[in-house]
Amino acid sequence: MKAVGIIAEYNPFHNGHAYQLREARHMGATHLAVVMSGNFTQRGEPAICDKWTRARMALECGADLVIEIPVPFACAPARDFAAAGVFLLSQLPIDTLCFGCECQSLSHLCAAARAVEQAERHPMMKRLLDDGVSYIHAREQAVWEIAGETAAEIIRQPNNALGIEYLRAIGRLCPQMAAWAIPRSGAGHHDERPNGAFASASYLRSQLQQGNLPQLSEWMPKQAFEILSQAVAQGRAVTSLESFSRLLLASLRTAAPEQLRQFRDVKEGVEFRILRASKEAASLDDLLKRTATKRYSRARMRRCLLACLLKIPQAELASPPQYLRILACNPKGRELLQRARKRDTVPVTPKFAQLSHMGFSQAKLEAQATDLYALMTEKAAPGNWEFTQNPWILL
Amino acid sequence: MKAVGIIAEYNPFHNGHAYQLREARHMGATHLAVVMSGNFTQRGEPAICDKWTRARMALECGADLVIEIPVPFACAPARDFAAAGVFLLSQLPIDTLCFGCECQSLSHLCAAARAVEQAERHPMMKRLLDDGVSYIHAREQAVWEIAGETAAEIIRQPNNALGIEYLRAIGRLCPQMAAWAIPRSGAGHHDERPNGAFASASYLRSQLQQGNLPQLSEWMPKQAFEILSQAVAQGRAVTSLESFSRLLLASLRTAAPEQLRQFRDVKEGVEFRILRASKEAASLDDLLKRTATKRYSRARMRRCLLACLLKIPQAELASPPQYLRILACNPKGRELLQRARKRDTVPVTPKFAQLSHMGFSQAKLEAQATDLYALMTEKAAPGNWEFTQNPWILL
Repeated sequence: MKAVGIIAEYNPFHNGHAYQLREARHMGATHLAVVMSGNFTQRGEPAICDKWTRARMALECGADLVIEIPVPFACAPARDFAAAGVFLLSQLPIDTLCFGCECQSLSHLCAAARAVEQAERHPMMKRLLDDGVSYIHAREQAVWEIAGETAAEIIRQPNNALGIEYLRAIGRLCPQMAAWAIPRSGAGHHDERPNGAFASASYLRSQLQQGNLPQLSEWMPKQAFEILSQAVAQGRAVTSLESFSRLLLASLRTAAPEQLRQFRDVKEGVEFRILRASKEAASLDDLLKRTATKRYSRARMRRCLLACLLKIPQAELASPPQYLRILACNPKGRELLQRARKRDTVPVTPKFAQLSHMGFSQAKLEAQATDLYALMTEKAAPGNWEFTQNPWILL
Repeated sequence: MKAVGIIAEYNPFHNGHAYQLREARHMGATHLAVVMSGNFTQRGEPAICDKWTRARMALECGADLVIEIPVPFACAPARDFAAAGVFLLSQLPIDTLCFGCECQSLSHLCAAARAVEQAERHPMMKRLLDDGVSYIHAREQAVWEIAGETAAEIIRQPNNALGIEYLRAIGRLCPQMAAWAIPRSGAGHHDERPNGAFASASYLRSQLQQGNLPQLSEWMPKQAFEILSQAVAQGRAVTSLESFSRLLLASLRTAAPEQLRQFRDVKEGVEFRILRASKEAASLDDLLKRTATKRYSRARMRRCLLACLLKIPQAELASPPQYLRILACNPKGRELLQRARKRDTVPVTPKFAQLSHMGFSQAKLEAQATDLYALMTEKAAPGNWEFTQNPWILL
């Protein structure tokens, strides 16, 4: 058995994702496990369709098992997101983490990861942060100082930056896990235009939001496109951010500063900036314009705002994920789960109600987040999905 | 000076309302003051268009002054709604309250009011309430027992029921205020079909919600129709309850029972019923179906749910309205205000920011309610309306 893991969002699943799964098979993977964000993503926004639909896409297109990243980590900064993913894979256990990157060489990426590690302890970094520079920019400048321009350029690419966090998490949590870095082929993470058979997930989302569903078929595997089309037809997709904007603004317009301060990363007076802006803004975009600063980037601010909406406490990131929750699985996936059950791991279950009965705080937050997500779908839906949706099992 | 007052919602202002204002003039009113619900109404729902627009309709169609009923009272049970209206008029001061009713004779209405007064102290009433009968039905049966079928039939009509509460409030708060009861002409309060030149406000709302704005012109004074059309064109109208449903459900889906218990009329375990239903329901209508019972009527439950959304504490109804807030005014209206200022009344102001600075709890709730209302309009809008909208002043 060669058990390989992938950390993903599949928002939505596209040709580039299918390519990565195929490459992993070519490199010898006999079992492929994916840990995937749930209904909210690292961008600090609702996913374009619910997690069961996205997990099914992955299973139909080459994965053997899909495990959920609990919501506090799914919409956390890259470092916490990566650590949660690596931790979940280490519980299965997985021998090798496979990830895409813009960098052509794993050794360059490892060198950049070491430079990042040093940068965070470098006096320059502290000075820049004190000057109000954002964490990302301060880190990039410190890496330049330590390891030169090439390393600084490497960490600037979004997939490299995430890859570096994976490597760092492996170093901390499970040094025996190997890494396969697959250079991205075709469209980059944020590319606005497709390239060959590949288009970025953000391009696909923008097409969907413009009502161009049929055009997505060109960039997605056939099965994934059909599953997505079905979700859109059922009104289970979030094809516009309008409901999200309204629900977010409503929750902020009735909040008090002392409430907001309990939530992740809402500190240093940012609670007052959020509250003031929530009354002046009429959309998420407007809200971000009014709250983001040099120090609080738009991405960070979006995650902050989502933490307020989903009521994610600051403390929730201090401990690792509390369980392995199965979203989709085939017979090979079941073999991976059996390996996990034989070891002394966190609880493994396809039944969400069990997790909830066991009193896991992350399960409570997950259920609440999904109850809100249901209201953001095109056709506002009843909640309780966590208790009524079954994982997608292929026998 | 003959100063006459009216308590209203004007949701929207129609020919029946114009008829009442004309009748009051015929009966000798030289100055006409209206106290009007703000952005949320006694039905427990957002008004079809914002209060400044509705106040302007009233002024253009015959009123001299429009004063706002603070939100805790505007969406309160009939008794508290009526008491707040009478209290505000008594501060101006107003000699006579004019109201519409289905009853042809004021003396019959006064007799029914006395029967209601007795019914509330009657052992039969307590017994029925203990048996789980709703307040409205228990009272009706007790009135039948005390004063016979005619009185019971009188109080069953919605405008009579409200009129009785006005008479009772006058008795308690300002016995020197006279009452003019104007028998309704044409369509009844809840009539589904128009009758002659008159259509009920609920008929007009349903027409608007079906997208039939042009048809409303038949039942509304020309100026009022133009003002409403302008608000609809600007996206300032709430022509669908969809946003309201989503915001309400979102606020409930993330609430805890101990939070809900703080809000008006949420007690006796109803908080658990609301929370459970908020996860199962996908709309306001669905939510009402799941939460209303024999004891908690749909109307009462709607007000309960609105109190949860607007965070109106139980205690807020214990004291009377804290201020006279001007929404619209012409020179005759100003004469009324001067009379109020000469006496020792609650503060009178067209500037909301002053009320807010003075620390009035009702002003805080009003601002928050309007910030939510702005998100329910067709085009979700920025908030802070309370601080940026000026009263409509005709010189």
